[in-house]
Amino acid sequence: MPFSIAEIADALGIRAEGNVALTISAVAEPAHAGPDDLALAMKPEFAAQLTQGQARAAMLWDGADWRAFGLDAALMAPRPRFAMSGLSAMLDTGSGYETGIHPSAIIHPDAVLGADVSIGALTVIEAGARIGSGSVIGPSCYVGKDVTLGADARLNSGVRLMHGVSIGDRFIAHPGAVVGADGFSFVTPEASGAENVRETLGDAGNAMAQSYARIHSLGSVTIGDDVELGANACIDRGTVRDTQIGNGCKFDNLAQVGHNVVIGNDCLICAQVGIAGSSRIGNNVVLGGQSGVSDNIFIGDNVITGGATKVLSNVPAGRVMLGYPAMKMDTQLDLYKQLRRLPRLIADVAALKKTVSKTEPSD
Amino acid sequence: MPFSIAEIADALGIRAEGNVALTISAVAEPAHAGPDDLALAMKPEFAAQLTQGQARAAMLWDGADWRAFGLDAALMAPRPRFAMSGLSAMLDTGSGYETGIHPSAIIHPDAVLGADVSIGALTVIEAGARIGSGSVIGPSCYVGKDVTLGADARLNSGVRLMHGVSIGDRFIAHPGAVVGADGFSFVTPEASGAENVRETLGDAGNAMAQSYARIHSLGSVTIGDDVELGANACIDRGTVRDTQIGNGCKFDNLAQVGHNVVIGNDCLICAQVGIAGSSRIGNNVVLGGQSGVSDNIFIGDNVITGGATKVLSNVPAGRVMLGYPAMKMDTQLDLYKQLRRLPRLIADVAALKKTVSKTEPSD
Amino acid sequence: MPFSIAEIADALGIRAEGNVALTISAVAEPAHAGPDDLALAMKPEFAAQLTQGQARAAMLWDGADWRAFGLDAALMAPRPRFAMSGLSAMLDTGSGYETGIHPSAIIHPDAVLGADVSIGALTVIEAGARIGSGSVIGPSCYVGKDVTLGADARLNSGVRLMHGVSIGDRFIAHPGAVVGADGFSFVTPEASGAENVRETLGDAGNAMAQSYARIHSLGSVTIGDDVELGANACIDRGTVRDTQIGNGCKFDNLAQVGHNVVIGNDCLICAQVGIAGSSRIGNNVVLGGQSGVSDNIFIGDNVITGGATKVLSNVPAGRVMLGYPAMKMDTQLDLYKQLRRLPRLIADVAALKKTVSKTEPSD
Repeated sequence: MPFSIAEIADALGIRAEGNVALTISAVAEPAHAGPDDLALAMKPEFAAQLTQGQARAAMLWDGADWRAFGLDAALMAPRPRFAMSGLSAMLDTGSGYETGIHPSAIIHPDAVLGADVSIGALTVIEAGARIGSGSVIGPSCYVGKDVTLGADARLNSGVRLMHGVSIGDRFIAHPGAVVGADGFSFVTPEASGAENVRETLGDAGNAMAQSYARIHSLGSVTIGDDVELGANACIDRGTVRDTQIGNGCKFDNLAQVGHNVVIGNDCLICAQVGIAGSSRIGNNVVLGGQSGVSDNIFIGDNVITGGATKVLSNVPAGRVMLGYPAMKMDTQLDLYKQLRRLPRLIADVAALKKTVSKTEPSD
Repeated sequence: MPFSIAEIADALGIRAEGNVALTISAVAEPAHAGPDDLALAMKPEFAAQLTQGQARAAMLWDGADWRAFGLDAALMAPRPRFAMSGLSAMLDTGSGYETGIHPSAIIHPDAVLGADVSIGALTVIEAGARIGSGSVIGPSCYVGKDVTLGADARLNSGVRLMHGVSIGDRFIAHPGAVVGADGFSFVTPEASGAENVRETLGDAGNAMAQSYARIHSLGSVTIGDDVELGANACIDRGTVRDTQIGNGCKFDNLAQVGHNVVIGNDCLICAQVGIAGSSRIGNNVVLGGQSGVSDNIFIGDNVITGGATKVLSNVPAGRVMLGYPAMKMDTQLDLYKQLRRLPRLIADVAALKKTVSKTEPSD
Repeated sequence: MPFSIAEIADALGIRAEGNVALTISAVAEPAHAGPDDLALAMKPEFAAQLTQGQARAAMLWDGADWRAFGLDAALMAPRPRFAMSGLSAMLDTGSGYETGIHPSAIIHPDAVLGADVSIGALTVIEAGARIGSGSVIGPSCYVGKDVTLGADARLNSGVRLMHGVSIGDRFIAHPGAVVGADGFSFVTPEASGAENVRETLGDAGNAMAQSYARIHSLGSVTIGDDVELGANACIDRGTVRDTQIGNGCKFDNLAQVGHNVVIGNDCLICAQVGIAGSSRIGNNVVLGGQSGVSDNIFIGDNVITGGATKVLSNVPAGRVMLGYPAMKMDTQLDLYKQLRRLPRLIADVAALKKTVSKTEPSD
């Protein structure tokens, strides 16, 4: 569906110049743009590519001299990446799920569907489930017993919400995401080697070999509004109370949230991150890809971890962390530099020992 | 379903005191407990919260002075966390799957179902599959050709057991778990760079660029009794013989077990752990979250790894390991401390060099 | 289905000796081989086990003295592991999916199926999907709107290809694999702490707490020929253009490829590897299990990373990398050795300080 440059400017609250009646129907990288595409050249370094493509209009950085790039029209935003959010929403043609209730869906008569809910082919909705108005449940999903899902959700194909899970409005989940699997909680009849190691930091003691007994997960999962969950990501249910996820949190693919975890609002949990059981994460936290958080620890507001950071102990609010074990990022980067000097240091000390042994008084 | 304090004490073999006829129907954290909840305050540090809640009964540590907390009744266990296993099993109200064979399930006439097997909506059971009595297969599962699954299994929605997999009794699998996908096994016509690196520890040589040929997985997977598999976890089939998992092993979400791996009994494999092809793991091993195990190595009985430990070579029985590369935990923790002294050490050596060059005889 | 030794030699283009009319119907490890099995003893160290089993024929290394092992016949290959590829293909009895279109599959009338396509039970094929001839789509799969899938594909149960994804010939995907979920792309109205950290390498500045706006993924995923995707692996769609995977790439279970990533030909991406958004990977790259690649970086041709390597910056072609952060493997292995000398180094420096302070002139 085409939009004029003026319509886009209007919708996004940004500035348009030139022939604002010109219409575009898609976006493209500058070098690959056709005449009906809006080229995206949101930083000066991408401007050179504009002449390689055929775009007549582009989204540019604030203050760009668009005429110099041979364009007929331009959109200019003070923060083009933010404008891209609204623009991409306008141009998204959707996942192609059919609307309405597919006849092959198996919906328990005791489930309650709001207005304008779509349920895809071969999806199962169990008794007591409540799905808010405007929600789109894709094909082959599973919505368990007594699940509450808010308005305007989008579950992609193959999402599984287990019994009793409660989720706010505008939830998005990608294929294979699982909310509410049982927590990983086992106990041995007597103290185990792993328990001893926790106390001694390294000594398993002489714990005997034992089999594990299962602790059932009696809690569920409570998720706020505006949460997004990546493909094959998992959020486990709690043991006694619910695992809790605040508003506005975004989880990338294959992320893992253990039982009893509490996460605040507006956190960004990148791909393959793991948060072990009972840890608490504040608000506005960013955990970089493949980061890990040990169980039973606390991460304060606004903490940021670089990729693959392994957090083994509490982190106060505002810290920027990196590495394994996690340190303040600047300390860690200094350490990486110091490690590169280690061969030289070893040689220096060897030379010093030689020199000093020579100079040392022989008495 | 409510239970009296006496009934619980009886079932768990623990001590009850006070008004043991009092009934509870759920458990709660002490501060959030209502009058019909059993508060869980299994360590003295949680006792203070009892007065914030309304519980009339609590599960406490052995020897607790329950009357002092204003309770009418108490359960006391020498190892309350172990008692929690039995208690949580009593109170678990289940996943809400319907019993019986759902009419939408597609069950091959040559599949054999034991007594009291439930098959959920839209589940596929292939020819030759044998499912033991009392097993509950949730909705949208896949049980492949010639799979053998023991008695009293519970497959949650979306579990996939591929052809020929053989599993013992009381197997539990969470949504999206996959048993028996093909192993990741490829070979180039001539020796590859990666093969050269293995021999030289760093030199890829001048191996030419090649495409990979596939080695098919002719083996399957054999799993013992009492195994549990987390959401979206994967256990690959073997190349020639089966990948083997012993009795009592528990795998958390997103764990990965490569082809030909052999795991003993009663191992705890935490979330996002990866075990590469053909490695062998002993009995009673605990691999902490995000740990990794290289291919073709051996990990002895009772080994424990801390979170994110990367095991690149064999580990003898009984070792407690941490870090990347894995070292003995106490050595690794010492190293972390030593690294913190590195800036000081570098400064000391620089100062020593200066001093020594001054004091060195000038002849 | 049994094959004679002569037939196998012929099919694989390798040498056969002895009673080549002897037939085998399966392969086995030497010690466990029965009389109708072909024992695999492809290195001299496995030869001793031949006498523990009952095999009458074996696949051996080139030049092996097969008569000495009591065999009636032998296959000998200059590179037995490569021969194993063809042999395993001959002996693979398949996944047991039924052929033809299962009546429970839900296939949109506007989907186009090539000749001899099989569609499993309860699979959904959306409008505009095109599936090449000879492809086998297993049970409970999802093939989205306008997906193009080439000839001779094999989708195992539970694979999900999202709308608009385009894939070449001979694609194999294992259960739960997802191609074309939305990219993980969010933006705050003002510069975020994480953006500040990228510029300062450690200082989040005083960015205020903000909620995230979503950037929709307008691109899709384009995958070449001969690609294989492991169980529960994920390849995300691009933001503006497609995420691109070259020919011959193999991804193991739980691997993650972010939005906009470009991967060349014949790469091996092992289990649980994560490649963050917009990174570019060359040809013939091998990323060891649990490796991670930061966003927006470049990895040259023929690069190899050891297990759990975390690549935080560009890597030139041909490098062999290890560790976190990634270094050249030989440098990293040297560093590991140097770190083991750190306690001694600290002691040496302390001793030197003491000695030098004594020897230092007291003026």
